[in-house]
Amino acid sequence: MAGTTRAFAGKRCLITGGLGFIGSNLAHRLVALGARVTIVDSLIPAYGGNLHNIDHIRDRVHVNISDVRDPHAMQVLVRGQDYIFNLAGQIGHLESMEDPQTDLRINTEGPLTVLEACRRYNPGAKVLYASTRQVYGKPLHLPVDETHPLQPIDCNAVSNIAAEHYHRLYSAVHGLRTVCLRLTNTYGPRQMMKDTQGRYAFIYYWIRRIIDGEPLLVMGGNQTRDFTYVDDCVGALLLAAAEPQADGEVYNLGGEAMSLRSLADLLIQVAGGGRIELMELPAERRAIDPGKVYLSYEKIRRELGWEPHVGLAEGLSRTIAFYRQHRDRYWNAADVAEQQIDALQIVRPGDDLPPSAPS
Amino acid sequence: MAGTTRAFAGKRCLITGGLGFIGSNLAHRLVALGARVTIVDSLIPAYGGNLHNIDHIRDRVHVNISDVRDPHAMQVLVRGQDYIFNLAGQIGHLESMEDPQTDLRINTEGPLTVLEACRRYNPGAKVLYASTRQVYGKPLHLPVDETHPLQPIDCNAVSNIAAEHYHRLYSAVHGLRTVCLRLTNTYGPRQMMKDTQGRYAFIYYWIRRIIDGEPLLVMGGNQTRDFTYVDDCVGALLLAAAEPQADGEVYNLGGEAMSLRSLADLLIQVAGGGRIELMELPAERRAIDPGKVYLSYEKIRRELGWEPHVGLAEGLSRTIAFYRQHRDRYWNAADVAEQQIDALQIVRPGDDLPPSAPS
Repeated sequence: MAGTTRAFAGKRCLITGGLGFIGSNLAHRLVALGARVTIVDSLIPAYGGNLHNIDHIRDRVHVNISDVRDPHAMQVLVRGQDYIFNLAGQIGHLESMEDPQTDLRINTEGPLTVLEACRRYNPGAKVLYASTRQVYGKPLHLPVDETHPLQPIDCNAVSNIAAEHYHRLYSAVHGLRTVCLRLTNTYGPRQMMKDTQGRYAFIYYWIRRIIDGEPLLVMGGNQTRDFTYVDDCVGALLLAAAEPQADGEVYNLGGEAMSLRSLADLLIQVAGGGRIELMELPAERRAIDPGKVYLSYEKIRRELGWEPHVGLAEGLSRTIAFYRQHRDRYWNAADVAEQQIDALQIVRPGDDLPPSAPS
Repeated sequence: MAGTTRAFAGKRCLITGGLGFIGSNLAHRLVALGARVTIVDSLIPAYGGNLHNIDHIRDRVHVNISDVRDPHAMQVLVRGQDYIFNLAGQIGHLESMEDPQTDLRINTEGPLTVLEACRRYNPGAKVLYASTRQVYGKPLHLPVDETHPLQPIDCNAVSNIAAEHYHRLYSAVHGLRTVCLRLTNTYGPRQMMKDTQGRYAFIYYWIRRIIDGEPLLVMGGNQTRDFTYVDDCVGALLLAAAEPQADGEVYNLGGEAMSLRSLADLLIQVAGGGRIELMELPAERRAIDPGKVYLSYEKIRRELGWEPHVGLAEGLSRTIAFYRQHRDRYWNAADVAEQQIDALQIVRPGDDLPPSAPS
């Protein structure tokens, strides 16, 4: 992956959802590689956007508060960009079942609006899309490779499938260079922590509880999942962006696979203590639970040379250390919101643009 | 199919897009079968809705002008219905490429809004969805069966794929009874004729031109397509509605297959005269043209006993006869719009509901 360290120097990169978990980790890496980064985020309160996610790089990125469903904003923002990371999304599976229209608008119409803006105003940009392993539904075989049928069992997966199709179509018909990555359970620093219900994912929820000395609620426990540390996920995004042979393709990511029960044990071991409470999987979750699922990442390994470098024990250790240090910036939703208003002052109108912003 | 003649007597049926081509032909059949029919249509001017499509059954159906994207209207209208035919849609492939967001909202968010209304207020209804053979893209093999990969090459196909997934998901997760039919080129009486550009389909465009004594513009000509006469399409919708074993399934329709050049020759023969002008397929159409494509309808034949009964020569003959008789109600967009305003008086507020309306 040595090529990717040079591919982004001086390049203009737009990251939608750039104040969220994966987007902000990507922004950190791109800044380190010398890229000129513009972050787009709508900071929808319930979601994972957090201005503290760009602490330490605030003076080296341009932040634009807007929604990917806004065609006017997107038409301006995509111009001149070399790489566009189309990451903004509503990631809740339960949310998608309760309000599928909002899920559809954010996750399908949003990315489509970015693609349309590119087609009209920047057809030379390369566009990366982050999809989800949920598109496969309940696996017919394991590990799940990219040829597995798409049989979604939650609305969030449908909205991601449609967005994938648009990316592939804009490549096949309009000649845009697009790549779709199907992400599995991604974890690490800068993930949302303010949600105390574990509605978007269980891993951050467990990490929060173990840091707070509360028991880990293991719902079911026999479900197997695979996990990608966020730095490895960011590495895949950069590689797929830098490699022309990825154009028009879709790739699974992946990582170490483990049952939820074993993961809870590992987390307790890494954290130096903790306990488990077992409970039944509630009906609303059981209806959309895919059971045992982990992905084959053989295609991206073979074609682009990607593989995960950070194992679960190491990744969980780094993640716990990060949150123990930065608890105040992530724990309470009200604090996060208030701090964001302060932090937003860095992008008040009239300020000179930061050095890395497109001119 | 004898069972379907009794299945609908006294049943409440909602048809979205019911003033359009297929919806209105379905309404005629359902009225004849003794059903209590409510038609929903937004009469978007460019599309195929036409109040003259329900001439002769106006006093036996209830017409409600509203948009399937309107959750409030849908929540009221789905209640108490036994069968819901989720047919409203934007059908233009070229349109979908020019304005994919509108296509997505009408074709995905619209049907989803109907499904959501059913989930909340009428989970016992059976819902039929009309999708398109375009979901397959350029065929990898012929005939195309339901297991063929979905590789859409136009945005309209993506919006249909997403709507299909929602229907199947609402069946698998929420227990709604839904069926998706993938329609091929459907033709017959009550199809839109006011579009003089052939933007939505070539077959009505050719029929219009041959009736007007104008040459048939054959773009390319070697493309093969299959054709379903609208009565056969309506028969499939009724059969899939009446048969419990169809629940949760997706079925191709189909019909007689022919090259466009041969179809033009047949049309001239049936009409008793006419001529052809050959031209190249324009670039914007070539980009989204699937080439040679026809579907296998073996699955619906085997499982539900459906097969087409009206061949192309007979179907074209009936269609030409219909339009020669009713030219004034279909030809000019301005006339159609004006007549519709007059015709709308039949559903002015305060009128007693017609006998077939839900009480």
